[in-house]
Amino acid sequence: MDVLPPGSTLGILGGGQLGRYMAISAQQRGYRVAVLDPEPDAPAHQVAHRRIVAAYDDPSALEQLATLCQAVTFEFENVPAASLEPFAKHGVAIRPGPFALATCQDRIAEKTLINACGIETAPWRPIGAPSDIDSALADLGGSGILKTARSGYDGKGQAKVQTPTQASEAFLRFGSVECVLEGIVPFSLECSVLAARDVHGSCVTHPVCENAHAHHVLDVTICPARVPESAAQAMRDHTTRIARRLEYVGHLAVEFFVLHDGAVVVNEIAPRPHNSGHLTLDATRNNQFEQHVRCVLGWPVLSYEQMQAASAMANLLGDGWTDGEPRWERLSEFPQVRLHLYGKAQARPGRKMGHLTAWSDSVEQAETLVRDARKALFA
Amino acid sequence: MDVLPPGSTLGILGGGQLGRYMAISAQQRGYRVAVLDPEPDAPAHQVAHRRIVAAYDDPSALEQLATLCQAVTFEFENVPAASLEPFAKHGVAIRPGPFALATCQDRIAEKTLINACGIETAPWRPIGAPSDIDSALADLGGSGILKTARSGYDGKGQAKVQTPTQASEAFLRFGSVECVLEGIVPFSLECSVLAARDVHGSCVTHPVCENAHAHHVLDVTICPARVPESAAQAMRDHTTRIARRLEYVGHLAVEFFVLHDGAVVVNEIAPRPHNSGHLTLDATRNNQFEQHVRCVLGWPVLSYEQMQAASAMANLLGDGWTDGEPRWERLSEFPQVRLHLYGKAQARPGRKMGHLTAWSDSVEQAETLVRDARKALFA
Repeated sequence: MDVLPPGSTLGILGGGQLGRYMAISAQQRGYRVAVLDPEPDAPAHQVAHRRIVAAYDDPSALEQLATLCQAVTFEFENVPAASLEPFAKHGVAIRPGPFALATCQDRIAEKTLINACGIETAPWRPIGAPSDIDSALADLGGSGILKTARSGYDGKGQAKVQTPTQASEAFLRFGSVECVLEGIVPFSLECSVLAARDVHGSCVTHPVCENAHAHHVLDVTICPARVPESAAQAMRDHTTRIARRLEYVGHLAVEFFVLHDGAVVVNEIAPRPHNSGHLTLDATRNNQFEQHVRCVLGWPVLSYEQMQAASAMANLLGDGWTDGEPRWERLSEFPQVRLHLYGKAQARPGRKMGHLTAWSDSVEQAETLVRDARKALFA
Repeated sequence: MDVLPPGSTLGILGGGQLGRYMAISAQQRGYRVAVLDPEPDAPAHQVAHRRIVAAYDDPSALEQLATLCQAVTFEFENVPAASLEPFAKHGVAIRPGPFALATCQDRIAEKTLINACGIETAPWRPIGAPSDIDSALADLGGSGILKTARSGYDGKGQAKVQTPTQASEAFLRFGSVECVLEGIVPFSLECSVLAARDVHGSCVTHPVCENAHAHHVLDVTICPARVPESAAQAMRDHTTRIARRLEYVGHLAVEFFVLHDGAVVVNEIAPRPHNSGHLTLDATRNNQFEQHVRCVLGWPVLSYEQMQAASAMANLLGDGWTDGEPRWERLSEFPQVRLHLYGKAQARPGRKMGHLTAWSDSVEQAETLVRDARKALFA
């Protein structure tokens, strides 16, 4: 039998908001949930059956989790390979699998796989030493973005460089670790495609999301993206192809740049539920966490049937708390807007505290709703 | 400010499936949740921030909960009045309030209030002593159902009686506690109306649900009920009137009998989310637990906007487990049917383990879906 029966335990490495929603989805289907996170009051610990408070690389904690669970998944991609060993040893289903994780935690492996699928990325060059910089920068037209090959997220470990000296300085600042230099692609839009792929290889994709960032962090997502149908179809097809190549099981998101001529290039892969997919919580029959958990537990993937024409999501960052508590009661004026909060006690600038979702007949209306509601909260 | 801000703690007395869904709803809006239930592995304990494992009348446990929370609610109506005192003392918002609870935990008070609203119940007589039986039975046409005035649910504390001797025996068997004798009303259908009422007195009602019982326990609910529009409107109006009279805050359900001539009489009131309302989990924008928790926390009630024409719910009782584990993988053949399980480790006959929901263009199709899926599970 492929399906792990309800009553089985799902292990989750990482106790943030993504782990929290995974836990809730699994619990609603009768599964037990064990979370490993170093923070005792982590969002997912607050709702889990079993809480293992330990570092992600703590061997005895990993051993404990591996003996408790029948399947294990992750809320972030930077899981050390060694952390997977206890699960493999105990015959725990690791989903997504080690190959997908290893690929997505290394920009060089990831871009190589994407290009091997015949799919464009921004032009890029590996940078292993300062001596690689000059020719790479020349190849890419004299400027680019230097990114650490591993462990970057939300703009961390990235620097825009316009001269060899800037590039060398950034390389040293990043600790001389392996990097990639990416050419700058002038794009008109950033998009993401959410997809879920099950153990049988069936893959469904969600209508394309359009993402607006602020300070390198996702700010607002609207769906469907305002792109030509041909570009939307290309992004969904590419995502399916990448998921297949990764032998992916679970939910993933592929981030794209849409160029001025309508061509699309992949920015990066997130091998997990994704911030832009938070709008699925209220906009689709089967949200991204439900889909992820289903696939991880061996169920067939479901459709991404939409419940309305358009939806939008606005992040609530800790910055909004700097003047004290948000004016929660003002949300009463927005019955069409739904508040989601992750249970984080401390609001810090840049910290993702929650988000707002809305749905409507048009993306413009939905976007206006979440933006206006957020403005009211933080006024 | 009426709205308790996110980060506040909601106390829940009772850790079953109703408490579990309340907890999940509150947590998704950023509230903390503390549950009091004597069973360490109770469904709501599994998902709560704070777990108080103690009897419902344990004074120190109640005191502990009262100091932790800013609002308290209940998943069952039989809360001893004394258990509310610590909350009143600490200024905790008790919702629904003591008057609504006291009324709904006593069939005599409840029927008196309903009749005082000008709404019909089955004819009834209070039975305080064996000597009350003869004339009551004669008044009601010679037969009736004897029910304990307090603490009955799911057919417990009820007996159909057709002679004074049977009635006296039942009265003694129930421990000579206060009872009511209800006349038998020949009805064509059993229905329920779900409603939520907020602190401002705004009340929304859900389209009428039609309920089929088996062995006095709810078996299948479909919505909308197949009743004349005038009957549906009367039931919704009656429910609003009863909620107002109870000064109700939160979600409640009123159970009705629909007579052969289309007249409606109230069976009883459930001052909490209700088993028939489980279909709102997948059929409405704002499910009954969301509505309950919103009202309890001081938010305005939302609409019960339906996401499709018809929906259905079938309970999964522990009886289905008697031949071993249900055949979970067969649900893969029913992508339109959603599984809900409450995390109960032990399946016992009659125990509510979970339910199935489905939605469709017609109630007949939705009902067929949940019945067929359940049959496949237990085949």
